[in-house]
Amino acid sequence: LTEAEFIAALRALPLHNGAMALADDAAHLGEWVLTKDLIAEGVHYLAADPPGDVAWKLLATNLSDLAAKGAAPVGAMLGYALGDDTFDRAFLAGLGEACATLGCPILGGDTIRVEAPRVLSLTAIGRTERRVLRSGARAGDALWVTGTIGDAGAGLAIAKGEVGPGALLAAYRRPIPRLAEGRVLANRANAMMDVSDGLLIDAARMAEASGLAVKIDLDAVPLSAEYRAFRGQDRVARLAAATAGDDYELLFALPEGEPASVAATRVGRFAEGHGLSVFDSEGEVPLPSTPGYMHGTSG
Amino acid sequence: LTEAEFIAALRALPLHNGAMALADDAAHLGEWVLTKDLIAEGVHYLAADPPGDVAWKLLATNLSDLAAKGAAPVGAMLGYALGDDTFDRAFLAGLGEACATLGCPILGGDTIRVEAPRVLSLTAIGRTERRVLRSGARAGDALWVTGTIGDAGAGLAIAKGEVGPGALLAAYRRPIPRLAEGRVLANRANAMMDVSDGLLIDAARMAEASGLAVKIDLDAVPLSAEYRAFRGQDRVARLAAATAGDDYELLFALPEGEPASVAATRVGRFAEGHGLSVFDSEGEVPLPSTPGYMHGTSG
Repeated sequence: LTEAEFIAALRALPLHNGAMALADDAAHLGEWVLTKDLIAEGVHYLAADPPGDVAWKLLATNLSDLAAKGAAPVGAMLGYALGDDTFDRAFLAGLGEACATLGCPILGGDTIRVEAPRVLSLTAIGRTERRVLRSGARAGDALWVTGTIGDAGAGLAIAKGEVGPGALLAAYRRPIPRLAEGRVLANRANAMMDVSDGLLIDAARMAEASGLAVKIDLDAVPLSAEYRAFRGQDRVARLAAATAGDDYELLFALPEGEPASVAATRVGRFAEGHGLSVFDSEGEVPLPSTPGYMHGTSG
Repeated sequence: LTEAEFIAALRALPLHNGAMALADDAAHLGEWVLTKDLIAEGVHYLAADPPGDVAWKLLATNLSDLAAKGAAPVGAMLGYALGDDTFDRAFLAGLGEACATLGCPILGGDTIRVEAPRVLSLTAIGRTERRVLRSGARAGDALWVTGTIGDAGAGLAIAKGEVGPGALLAAYRRPIPRLAEGRVLANRANAMMDVSDGLLIDAARMAEASGLAVKIDLDAVPLSAEYRAFRGQDRVARLAAATAGDDYELLFALPEGEPASVAATRVGRFAEGHGLSVFDSEGEVPLPSTPGYMHGTSG
């Protein structure tokens, strides 16, 4: 089955109310928020990626899901496939740095030993006082995004061999989840999610979940100085940034005219209707056939 | 690293208090209990096992960890490796039966698509009012076990081609976690855990965690009529039962003389000292070199 077919079939099983009908990135149990990711070598990370960075990213991507709920991290359950000693030790060192830096202790887990490819799993638990979903955007809301877009996608190209700025590689390998921003925004945003598969596809998902159309101003998409130096800032470079994955920035909807109150950029607007459209100073931008980064079938 | 080395290294990372120093099978967050298992084809289940049974067992074994904490199931987060449509549909059907029968709805999860061997993950969340650990046994306590022992081990032999009773195969493929018994016992037992790797090794683990010795009466180990018909009940048959895995019965310590108050059998006694010893009517029983079933390095 495809992921979409599997999730549709899963909806026919007994579902907890807190599963939010499997339409969101996290589950809610009272004030607790749970999110789970499975990653596989060669699919979600490169076999050549440093093991410490793999560990960092495994925790950081789950914490990004918590950030999008405005939740503070509480702990993580790790599922680990044991490998050679060098990998295991470097993984543990990176995980320790991530736990300490991002403020998320280990709660427990399980280990297995299997043949390659290695599969790793993490369930992160957070706590929040307010539920913010991706489905709450209203017609007329402005769409905002934190930070800059496209750095991690460019970093992936550098990890694969292109020569480019170290800051872009770092954005790909050691993303920093927007936990503080998420906690502030949870009390203000009508809808929020993290940008994991690409700005355009994730904005389209927020619009679809909210029953609205969304229009993106491609010229407004925030690019870092390093990205502009590496890829430029013409339409092609901006489209590449907005369709690359792994940004782990927060995408959120606020009533038009309200300030973001965190460092963020207004990149679009919701309206009645449905679908995604993209404009820049030259007019409407034809959408690429692949509007985001798809890890096989994984979200 | 071995699993023990990995867990020891993990203890050096930032740990949540509820991790119980990674010495137990579950983590505690207030009244919530979390447990996680990762299973791999060819390691924890056979490639020929029916997919619906794989799903059932994945949920049931996690719920058995909750049962050992006296916790009622709240929900499950599933990590699923997508495969061919036939497997996926049969897996979902079995998971639905397990969710409905065992009383645990789906909370969320993640899917990936990777090359074989398939790896699956589940995090189960439960709720309990009392913490019962494996480390609370006291010198003089009696050791009890629910149900019968060895059925699943015999069922594994049948799954691999031996001819034998269907009830044993069912015990291997569709274990029933002792949730009701666990909730009753959580208020009475000094220590509790589930029997996942074998009665002898798990009893030895409870004794070690409690800083005690344990002595098992092999003649008392409860065997089903089907097991006795299949393997007999001599010392060899009893040792085979007590060193096979996958029973998912509850093992618990009660003050000597107190009734179990659930269907269970007294199989041993804790004493000052350390280590495991096994006796039957003929005297001390030499311990096998492998006192339990080890899934590679997984617990």
